[in-house]
Amino acid sequence: MPTLSLRVDLDPDGRIGPGKIALLESIAELGSISAAGRAMDMSYRRAWELVDEMNGIFGKPVVRSQSGGTRGGGAVLTSLGRALIVRYRAIERDAAAAAAQHLLALQEEIARADDETPGV
Amino acid sequence: MPTLSLRVDLDPDGRIGPGKIALLESIAELGSISAAGRAMDMSYRRAWELVDEMNGIFGKPVVRSQSGGTRGGGAVLTSLGRALIVRYRAIERDAAAAAAQHLLALQEEIARADDETPGV
Repeated sequence: MPTLSLRVDLDPDGRIGPGKIALLESIAELGSISAAGRAMDMSYRRAWELVDEMNGIFGKPVVRSQSGGTRGGGAVLTSLGRALIVRYRAIERDAAAAAAQHLLALQEEIARADDETPGV
Repeated sequence: MPTLSLRVDLDPDGRIGPGKIALLESIAELGSISAAGRAMDMSYRRAWELVDEMNGIFGKPVVRSQSGGTRGGGAVLTSLGRALIVRYRAIERDAAAAAAQHLLALQEEIARADDETPGV
């Protein structure tokens, strides 16, 4: 019985796949690039490189440092960073929904294939 | 400006991605596993292994040998093989259509990000 694994890559020249999106979500949740990196078992340097790569792809920051306040030194997503997560997850969701009917139809076609007489 | 690269994998335990689907399409077009393999720069052995893997995944053949006739010795897709191509391409097409509106919205959000005042 087939299930579906969808991979959505935005921008082929600077790939933004599930890993970078999960990092952005972790930064949004934890308020810090280093904490998000730790939560994903990656070094601060690696997490920062991925954020910097996304900033470069769009020519605009997806994360900015939060200056001052009680959580000074943290990081927050820009509106672009938030939009990127929302749109990426929406694409995944809608693509999976669009695929569902075809997967059901394929399952029926697999079952029907029993009836086919070899060589006919 | 983001574009989209979608990857559809049916059955995570026995991955059926764009390569195997292209092989099936080539077999349907050329009527032979070896000719299809050559057209895709792979050995007959490799092409046959991929076909055999798909047969195993579904427990039913996606390709069968064409016995007799003027093209004896060739290979044709079973109804399951044909259904697999049709459904895979339909999933790609519908998923891309579902993604299109989100990519447009994301482009607008990238443009709007110019207006964001840093730190606010």
